[in-house]
Amino acid sequence: MIKRLCVIGVGLIGGSLARSLRAANAVGEIVGCGRGRENLETAIRLNVIDEFTSDPVQAVAGADMIVVATTLGATAEIFSKIAPAISAATVVTDVGSAKQRVIELAISNFGERIGQFVPGHPIAGTEHSGVEASFAELFQNHRVILTPTEQTSAAALSAVTKMWQSTGAVVCEMSAEQHDTILAATSHLPHMLAYALVECLASMDESNDVFKYAAGGFRDFTRIASSNPEMWRDIALDNRHALLAAMDRFQITFDLLKNALSSEDAEALQGLFQNAKSARDAAETLEE
Amino acid sequence: MIKRLCVIGVGLIGGSLARSLRAANAVGEIVGCGRGRENLETAIRLNVIDEFTSDPVQAVAGADMIVVATTLGATAEIFSKIAPAISAATVVTDVGSAKQRVIELAISNFGERIGQFVPGHPIAGTEHSGVEASFAELFQNHRVILTPTEQTSAAALSAVTKMWQSTGAVVCEMSAEQHDTILAATSHLPHMLAYALVECLASMDESNDVFKYAAGGFRDFTRIASSNPEMWRDIALDNRHALLAAMDRFQITFDLLKNALSSEDAEALQGLFQNAKSARDAAETLEE
Repeated sequence: MIKRLCVIGVGLIGGSLARSLRAANAVGEIVGCGRGRENLETAIRLNVIDEFTSDPVQAVAGADMIVVATTLGATAEIFSKIAPAISAATVVTDVGSAKQRVIELAISNFGERIGQFVPGHPIAGTEHSGVEASFAELFQNHRVILTPTEQTSAAALSAVTKMWQSTGAVVCEMSAEQHDTILAATSHLPHMLAYALVECLASMDESNDVFKYAAGGFRDFTRIASSNPEMWRDIALDNRHALLAAMDRFQITFDLLKNALSSEDAEALQGLFQNAKSARDAAETLEE
Repeated sequence: MIKRLCVIGVGLIGGSLARSLRAANAVGEIVGCGRGRENLETAIRLNVIDEFTSDPVQAVAGADMIVVATTLGATAEIFSKIAPAISAATVVTDVGSAKQRVIELAISNFGERIGQFVPGHPIAGTEHSGVEASFAELFQNHRVILTPTEQTSAAALSAVTKMWQSTGAVVCEMSAEQHDTILAATSHLPHMLAYALVECLASMDESNDVFKYAAGGFRDFTRIASSNPEMWRDIALDNRHALLAAMDRFQITFDLLKNALSSEDAEALQGLFQNAKSARDAAETLEE
């Protein structure tokens, strides 16, 4: 049971976590912290949080669990502000999509308190943002990846694991490097492809017709291009090494496909499509 | 009212058209034609067709409307077989995704009967195939693009327009060239990206983990990579000029994005993401 939870960044993820812990009776008080007063007032009205402040130092006072759920770009500033204010009993965690970068920032800011920090990332979300888009069931049966370092204390790791389990999530652990490689492939690269595709179509002379005649497959495919541009700027930059490597791998396959097409190599095309279909169909069976 | 409809290729599209016309009382008898006996027997059992034959010449005998709904790769053979067998009163149409190629084949096969052929393409589908995946509502509120040539007779165009309107579809006309450019952008290119992405991930050392940790966005994004490989081989090859042009346009935007990322140009990244999001959000409002 968390006595006083501090959520810094009460958006889709932070808001859903707060709602979910409340619904599970796994939390006492919840204090929200953020820059947008209107969003925080909405969070109060929706009973997502009990109180709020725009000052991170005030926000963390007395909290036994602090969740930094801002965009990655704000993480450095938040860590530097809250680091002097946390007590020996406080656990800090985050929800950022680029774990190696977050760990660098944690090490340089938390100093001897680094053991109290648990790097985390819930694999859940929608293309919407803000507390109004949040809901208690967001993490149900989704995975939360924790990437503890050698410094992470067992007590802190256990507290964060229990918190996420209360939301119905499946918690697992891996190295930050492995996390970043996997997320670059399954999330960051697809977002780049969707953004690039829509941008490329929007710049065509026929762009109005293009979007008018798009079928359901196109809409599914490009839904993620409606995601928050500021958030994705930060994720792309903070995980750029793994993401650029993933983009280079994609380029190799894309070139293979282009060459098969321009040389009218029907067998190579069908082989590539068949491989991909088999992998995609097998992946469906891996789902919970 | 169609007296005797001949559907060559009783799969997702052909089967759904038959079901839909039946449901709308817009058809008398339906004869199915195809290579797979089992699929045709299923079509009889599901009451999608009344009778079947594997011989296209027999199939078209007495039909006032013939719909060629095979994969694009089979179109040339079907056209050459049925051309000598159609009467002056018969209308022929197709559902292929590469209209310039289909028109070439129609011209070289139908000779003086070319006016009776109406090139068509329903913008609807799912990642499933076969008559068991067909359903009467597939075309409801979806667009069907007809690409008549100067030779197409007004009577044939009108008959095919009415047929599709009976399914609840919105029928519109454009040139075959415009169709191919638009479809390359909105459908064929996204399929290439999805296939290439899944193939690229499947070839990673971490591929099992990669698919295990994929979130909902990834599954939406790659659903189209479960489409029929043979069908997509044909579409890609038959529309390869427009598709290669679309892939080249995509490459330009993808390179822009990669360069912005490797030079850590936050402003360029956010600008590109924001443009894409605006275009994607605006496209949603274009939907019926």
